[in-house]
Amino acid sequence: MPEKTYTISSNTVIPFKNNADFCVGTGRMYLALFHEYFEQLKLVQEKIGFKYIRGHGLFTDDMAIYHEYEENGVKKAEYNFTYLDMVMDRYLELNLRPFLELGFMPEKMASGSQTVFYWKGNVTPPKDYAAWRDLVQNLLKHLISRYGADEVITWPIEVWNEPNLPGFWKGADMREYFRLFEESFNAVKSVDTRFRVGGPAICGVDDERWMKEFLQFCKEKKIAIDFITRHHYTSNPPETDGHYMYVKLVEPEGCMDSVNTTRRIVDSFPEFKDMEIHITEFNTSYVPKATIHDTIYNAAYTAYMLSTFGDSNESYSYWTFGDIFEEQGVPYTPFHGGFGLVANGLIPKPTFWTFQFFKNLKGECVHRTGDSVIVRDKNGKYTGIAWSLADEELTLNFALESAEGSGEAFCLITKTVDELNANPLKIWHDMGEPANLSKEQLQILRESSAPYIKSEQLSAQAGSVCFNLSLKPSAVVYFELEPVTMVSDRGFSYSRTISQR
Amino acid sequence: MPEKTYTISSNTVIPFKNNADFCVGTGRMYLALFHEYFEQLKLVQEKIGFKYIRGHGLFTDDMAIYHEYEENGVKKAEYNFTYLDMVMDRYLELNLRPFLELGFMPEKMASGSQTVFYWKGNVTPPKDYAAWRDLVQNLLKHLISRYGADEVITWPIEVWNEPNLPGFWKGADMREYFRLFEESFNAVKSVDTRFRVGGPAICGVDDERWMKEFLQFCKEKKIAIDFITRHHYTSNPPETDGHYMYVKLVEPEGCMDSVNTTRRIVDSFPEFKDMEIHITEFNTSYVPKATIHDTIYNAAYTAYMLSTFGDSNESYSYWTFGDIFEEQGVPYTPFHGGFGLVANGLIPKPTFWTFQFFKNLKGECVHRTGDSVIVRDKNGKYTGIAWSLADEELTLNFALESAEGSGEAFCLITKTVDELNANPLKIWHDMGEPANLSKEQLQILRESSAPYIKSEQLSAQAGSVCFNLSLKPSAVVYFELEPVTMVSDRGFSYSRTISQR
Amino acid sequence: MPEKTYTISSNTVIPFKNNADFCVGTGRMYLALFHEYFEQLKLVQEKIGFKYIRGHGLFTDDMAIYHEYEENGVKKAEYNFTYLDMVMDRYLELNLRPFLELGFMPEKMASGSQTVFYWKGNVTPPKDYAAWRDLVQNLLKHLISRYGADEVITWPIEVWNEPNLPGFWKGADMREYFRLFEESFNAVKSVDTRFRVGGPAICGVDDERWMKEFLQFCKEKKIAIDFITRHHYTSNPPETDGHYMYVKLVEPEGCMDSVNTTRRIVDSFPEFKDMEIHITEFNTSYVPKATIHDTIYNAAYTAYMLSTFGDSNESYSYWTFGDIFEEQGVPYTPFHGGFGLVANGLIPKPTFWTFQFFKNLKGECVHRTGDSVIVRDKNGKYTGIAWSLADEELTLNFALESAEGSGEAFCLITKTVDELNANPLKIWHDMGEPANLSKEQLQILRESSAPYIKSEQLSAQAGSVCFNLSLKPSAVVYFELEPVTMVSDRGFSYSRTISQR
Amino acid sequence: MPEKTYTISSNTVIPFKNNADFCVGTGRMYLALFHEYFEQLKLVQEKIGFKYIRGHGLFTDDMAIYHEYEENGVKKAEYNFTYLDMVMDRYLELNLRPFLELGFMPEKMASGSQTVFYWKGNVTPPKDYAAWRDLVQNLLKHLISRYGADEVITWPIEVWNEPNLPGFWKGADMREYFRLFEESFNAVKSVDTRFRVGGPAICGVDDERWMKEFLQFCKEKKIAIDFITRHHYTSNPPETDGHYMYVKLVEPEGCMDSVNTTRRIVDSFPEFKDMEIHITEFNTSYVPKATIHDTIYNAAYTAYMLSTFGDSNESYSYWTFGDIFEEQGVPYTPFHGGFGLVANGLIPKPTFWTFQFFKNLKGECVHRTGDSVIVRDKNGKYTGIAWSLADEELTLNFALESAEGSGEAFCLITKTVDELNANPLKIWHDMGEPANLSKEQLQILRESSAPYIKSEQLSAQAGSVCFNLSLKPSAVVYFELEPVTMVSDRGFSYSRTISQR
Repeated sequence: MPEKTYTISSNTVIPFKNNADFCVGTGRMYLALFHEYFEQLKLVQEKIGFKYIRGHGLFTDDMAIYHEYEENGVKKAEYNFTYLDMVMDRYLELNLRPFLELGFMPEKMASGSQTVFYWKGNVTPPKDYAAWRDLVQNLLKHLISRYGADEVITWPIEVWNEPNLPGFWKGADMREYFRLFEESFNAVKSVDTRFRVGGPAICGVDDERWMKEFLQFCKEKKIAIDFITRHHYTSNPPETDGHYMYVKLVEPEGCMDSVNTTRRIVDSFPEFKDMEIHITEFNTSYVPKATIHDTIYNAAYTAYMLSTFGDSNESYSYWTFGDIFEEQGVPYTPFHGGFGLVANGLIPKPTFWTFQFFKNLKGECVHRTGDSVIVRDKNGKYTGIAWSLADEELTLNFALESAEGSGEAFCLITKTVDELNANPLKIWHDMGEPANLSKEQLQILRESSAPYIKSEQLSAQAGSVCFNLSLKPSAVVYFELEPVTMVSDRGFSYSRTISQR
Repeated sequence: MPEKTYTISSNTVIPFKNNADFCVGTGRMYLALFHEYFEQLKLVQEKIGFKYIRGHGLFTDDMAIYHEYEENGVKKAEYNFTYLDMVMDRYLELNLRPFLELGFMPEKMASGSQTVFYWKGNVTPPKDYAAWRDLVQNLLKHLISRYGADEVITWPIEVWNEPNLPGFWKGADMREYFRLFEESFNAVKSVDTRFRVGGPAICGVDDERWMKEFLQFCKEKKIAIDFITRHHYTSNPPETDGHYMYVKLVEPEGCMDSVNTTRRIVDSFPEFKDMEIHITEFNTSYVPKATIHDTIYNAAYTAYMLSTFGDSNESYSYWTFGDIFEEQGVPYTPFHGGFGLVANGLIPKPTFWTFQFFKNLKGECVHRTGDSVIVRDKNGKYTGIAWSLADEELTLNFALESAEGSGEAFCLITKTVDELNANPLKIWHDMGEPANLSKEQLQILRESSAPYIKSEQLSAQAGSVCFNLSLKPSAVVYFELEPVTMVSDRGFSYSRTISQR
Repeated sequence: MPEKTYTISSNTVIPFKNNADFCVGTGRMYLALFHEYFEQLKLVQEKIGFKYIRGHGLFTDDMAIYHEYEENGVKKAEYNFTYLDMVMDRYLELNLRPFLELGFMPEKMASGSQTVFYWKGNVTPPKDYAAWRDLVQNLLKHLISRYGADEVITWPIEVWNEPNLPGFWKGADMREYFRLFEESFNAVKSVDTRFRVGGPAICGVDDERWMKEFLQFCKEKKIAIDFITRHHYTSNPPETDGHYMYVKLVEPEGCMDSVNTTRRIVDSFPEFKDMEIHITEFNTSYVPKATIHDTIYNAAYTAYMLSTFGDSNESYSYWTFGDIFEEQGVPYTPFHGGFGLVANGLIPKPTFWTFQFFKNLKGECVHRTGDSVIVRDKNGKYTGIAWSLADEELTLNFALESAEGSGEAFCLITKTVDELNANPLKIWHDMGEPANLSKEQLQILRESSAPYIKSEQLSAQAGSVCFNLSLKPSAVVYFELEPVTMVSDRGFSYSRTISQR
Repeated sequence: MPEKTYTISSNTVIPFKNNADFCVGTGRMYLALFHEYFEQLKLVQEKIGFKYIRGHGLFTDDMAIYHEYEENGVKKAEYNFTYLDMVMDRYLELNLRPFLELGFMPEKMASGSQTVFYWKGNVTPPKDYAAWRDLVQNLLKHLISRYGADEVITWPIEVWNEPNLPGFWKGADMREYFRLFEESFNAVKSVDTRFRVGGPAICGVDDERWMKEFLQFCKEKKIAIDFITRHHYTSNPPETDGHYMYVKLVEPEGCMDSVNTTRRIVDSFPEFKDMEIHITEFNTSYVPKATIHDTIYNAAYTAYMLSTFGDSNESYSYWTFGDIFEEQGVPYTPFHGGFGLVANGLIPKPTFWTFQFFKNLKGECVHRTGDSVIVRDKNGKYTGIAWSLADEELTLNFALESAEGSGEAFCLITKTVDELNANPLKIWHDMGEPANLSKEQLQILRESSAPYIKSEQLSAQAGSVCFNLSLKPSAVVYFELEPVTMVSDRGFSYSRTISQR
């Protein structure tokens, strides 16, 4: 059984950028009209609280934004923002802002009929870039008229999605994408120069070439992009069986290689050195039927990623917050390997808690390794997360420096996610894997989906507080260690209380 | 480490009356106007769901029901039902009905000034029984006019509280109580004979004599009482330290002696044989500062009581549902030994779960011992509760008969309350016993106050499903064992899912 | 100014079947997943409370129920009830049950590609009736396994929608529909004979021939149908301008002609005489852009229809409860002539109140004319509705018999819908007809959308209570007249109160 | 019928301090634990939104803060903040802060037994000022430890209540009050000098002498008070009949005389010139059974006061927000002349709307007279309130300057409170004045208690928009006049829509 010991000084400061709550992914915008989507997102916002949300389908026809009609023999465009406003109102109500992705193509404006996904987003270039520019400008003007310019200019804008894949952009035509980018960029800036626009929103296929060419293009055209975006998935191609897919992940130690390469490419351009990179999508697998998404291993692997993503990137948006998602059709079962942090039925999955734990890390970093990270706030409270990617139990021994020497009392609170805690997948399996949950089953799954909370009172010895965490395989454990003063009320004795018979 | 083995046949039927959800106690009626009271009661009703609620103080002056004024030199009575209606409306809204206790005495009607409790309920007889009768009749007529006779006659009526204590009834004057009872009984029946009226609401002091004399009185006077009531506490007199009290409990095996004696006394009167006995108050200790109330031992001891109370009683009302309660003043801390199932701050205590577990026992009893009870419903689902009153770990091995022989799959769900689960008292202690909880502390206490849920899939062997429960000291474990059919969706493999890396 | 006088005897009993709350229509089932849909339906249920809900699209592919896959070279069907259960759960949560309409055709099962509506429901017969029967049976078996047979058999079943229109059923092929009906009928009854099945769900085109042939077919085939269904719209073909349509309605006096003809046709078959007829859709206009739907005239016209529909029909389902509805695309504005009782933004339209008023009519009918209806309950409370289809103010003078002669006090409460009350369309127009409502505008529209409530205290004279209602054009006025006893509290004087300065 | 015409220029700026939402009064602090209190306050905060709340009873024994016990023969003090925290948490949850009133005296600390009110607040000086100082300091230290110093120092502190009345302060002993003030002032400042402390909290009895002496005392003792407080009621002594009281009000024109005198007295001290005066209580009558409080006249009179109070005072706190209030016992009926803006049952009274209307006045004042006030915001939107204190109908003709000359369209929205609108007292009277409201009655009263909303579209003519308001006696009318642009959607015609038949 592996064991490690960490001695941590309270005044060390270790670099650690924690931006886990910056942005989260979502199924296409039309699905934001769903009740279950709203409930799931509300839960996510109450317990985690992201700042931005990003997804596809803003201009896809189900959102019904773009229309044409004839008047006196002349074709005219008109825009319908009924559904858009419903979605934006709700995001703001939940204290979220959109990270706008311009795409896909309205049928009426499209140059072709190629579509992507079960929900058939058109992925062909506009047949008329003037119409596209008008659409972008009218969109932003409408949003400004409704929400105010000072609000709307804080919504980042990304042009299209994964144009380096032929499935998402006809022919993966790089030059055509650059044109789309330039046209879009200019259209946005013509509305308000304060808008921030980025791209190229590529995934990890032929990505080095795309990134270099894109930056070269911007450089040559003097396009003052505001940030760089890409996606990051860490699995090999999946194997399919029936409705489900199974994957093998990249080894953890190499899991940041490709994004680090992107960082180096960007920094190699003097014009773009140190420019913000936003990972506008990430997850382990890139398919919404990959059963790994529902597992505790996914939670632990994600913890590791969150501990290191900030080294080279401004933000990294988990794809996605919930399982209302139709890219490959409608799932048959609540646990079907969807991307979501929340399963349908309002059940948090293990990775949900990874995000909640990182959300709570506040203060200066005093410790960071491949299995744990700890911060300390100005009141001397330590907060940390440990995870295990091993297949056997892992013991971590911590000795944390205490400001006030010996005898000081501390309360250690731990919250554990592992096979037997916050693991609804296992309970659902034991229930017989029902496709449609009864109220009773749903209640048990919800009740059992929270981490196990334990407390302990510790005492500093020789300037340190010592404790150990035993992590079962794939466990993620959150802990906080706070100095406490016993303030027992007059006459109260805990030991006497619990020894009464 | 003690260990027991139980082999249980599915078609045994063992006598077991489970009426744990019939009634629950409450702080005085005026407190039912409180917001925190309402929130606590709502929680109790959502998770447990009692039918009736009983408490003191209906006629105490803070409810402001009884008034007098002079008109043309003549004294007249008037009644104010403003607060009463607020309370009754809210009970009904929470799907509760009052178990009405007639008392205490309005100051204006009282023959003396003796009071009980911090909130000063007057405990002297009426100076004019005609006024008392008018009060009772006007109360019931008002309730009928507001809620309808068919509703109101289902509310049982009890006369006064613990008249056998001089603190609750001036001089513990037995004859005066009998008069009060008779006058009240007749006043109630004059409004509607369908009302059900009972007494003598005594506690365990000089109780045998009181019970006999009361029944003798009713017999002689031909008072057709509808049910018998008494209280039952199982602790010796407490020791006090500062704001708190510490007790020693009656040994579990003898804990029903006095109520069984009452049963025998009642049955010894041919007129009253088999008459319903309602234990209108019970708990371990009878003081609202007895720290034992907040412990897991209290939960286990209560489980034992609930498993056996029904042998001689129609119902038994836990005193009380929540900690908004002022009999001995306002508590200094959230965990102060209050009677409540719920601590202030909306935190369920361990005994809360004992009741929730018993609420879920539905079906025929197939097993009942001093440490466990099991029922089976018509679908073959077993539901049980086990508890440990021992100071060491207890292992129970169960072999439950399976209808369908070998190979049948079962899902076993367990919910555990013990030192490390659903035990907010311990966490609060580790936090330093703060008198006033911060939001963060409150959240941790609430989140950690639920039982630990675990599932397991079992397989019947040779006509039985076998499993064992290991109970830590003072644990209460709920379990349900349900036949399941694996309905794995096409392509889904749980073992493949969790072995992905 | 027209004026009428009605003298009403309290013991008259006039035939009047009031079943306005039996069923309501809805946009296609997929839209039931929407949050705004849910909110609108919740409002409708809280204020009105229908028993059933009926709409299209159960089998349309967005519900994702029907699928095929190959296994070992053999094509197999599989069913996905994920979305269906979400919808049904929510209906039941809102105390609603579905009036199931079997349709439209899943693409994979369809014999052709013809579709109806913006949302493209396939309207061709199945290419394989065995697959269709399996689908119907699996649907019902799934529902029974989830909700229980006793519940599900209370859900009426209708076969398809308006097969007499070629747009809804390929070629309006009558014989093919009869086959579909028979196959469906048998499939349903094979699951549980207690299910109630009806048709032919036709609208008012060639309806007499269809109805006769359908009944003849059932008679010949000995199909024991449980009820008859048809639709009823009372407008002439609309004129279109831009996104909107304008209509002329059938004169009120003739508005029941076609449904009365249906009644006569049905009764002409001895086998089907007095059989229940359910009008499974009705409204003024049959297009969801007909601006009349949002007007007060629509409310008054509907009031008249509700007062007379019951004469020949068991029920009549207003099409639809809300404006989340995509048959002709997504509306540009909140008031766009949608069918809904509630406009998007959760704003009740005038017709909403017509239904609420009829919902409140309880008791024996004592008066019914072309402009008003009155019932009386056993406590002597009168409840009535009056409406005006005239273009000038209408005064109705009522003299209602009072049981207790002269002097008895009554409280008259009126609730008025007219141009200046509960008419959000006018306020929205005055606001400039904004397509996208600000929070402030929305709040004013919601606040102003309730009827005007007025009270008056009346006194019976010579055995009658007299009052008059002045109805502005298109007004709908609800009133209740209840005997009251003045119970002024000691010292309270209303006249003195309001004269203080 | 009187009529007035006002021509208003858009660039006039008229002095007008509108601070109607600064503070509101409340029943004693213990009542803040009530559920109905919470519901009423929530309604008030949602619809109006005050910043501070002030009431009595912080130190009264029902709050259970101050206690004494003996240890080793020595008497010690201890403090219990259980209830205090419940109240403060809830205020903050409702976005309110307390305006702390130090009083009344804990029994254990009191020098005498004199009490005030039904709820018996002890009004005698402390027998030991050291204990009082400790109490004040411990209170503030506790609040700071719980809510943070930066928060708590924004809570103003007032010393005692109406010491100039012998009923509120034993013997109305001025010198003793000055001592209490000085001790309290010093105790508060010793905790944090940033706290703001004021007094003398007097009402209008012997008030000139008290104010002068108090200021003289502060001047001589060099007590750097932070603000001045007093109360203001505008009625003559009431006449009583049974449970109710009837009053005659001061004529409106003289209603500010006494507070203006206070202003002059304060300003006559160079040290205190221009010091903030907070009217920490005001209303028409000073008794909680004065039936005038529930009338529309009270709403109109209050409107006038709110339009002029700011001329000499920093704030003015309406006494009280709701009718959960026990100073004179528990009311028998929902409309009993309580101080509240909201009647029990969650029914807004007319004066509620006066406050909501003033809350909405935002912008520069362009018009202020004895019957109306108008402001204009930077977008050219006018908002105004008109009221009528006359006994006959009053017509006000407004001509408001329009920035853009002729033809500009405006939307006028009016909200009316008068005899037939937002006047639940009348409806309750017509219902027979029931003491205990049924659900149906409650619903009608709530539904009818909102102002009548009307819209109109106006057009500017010759640089002005003209409209008139007809005010029934005691009416209060809110209006907003906003420039609108007609944005009729393609094809929509309102006139065609409403003329369809």
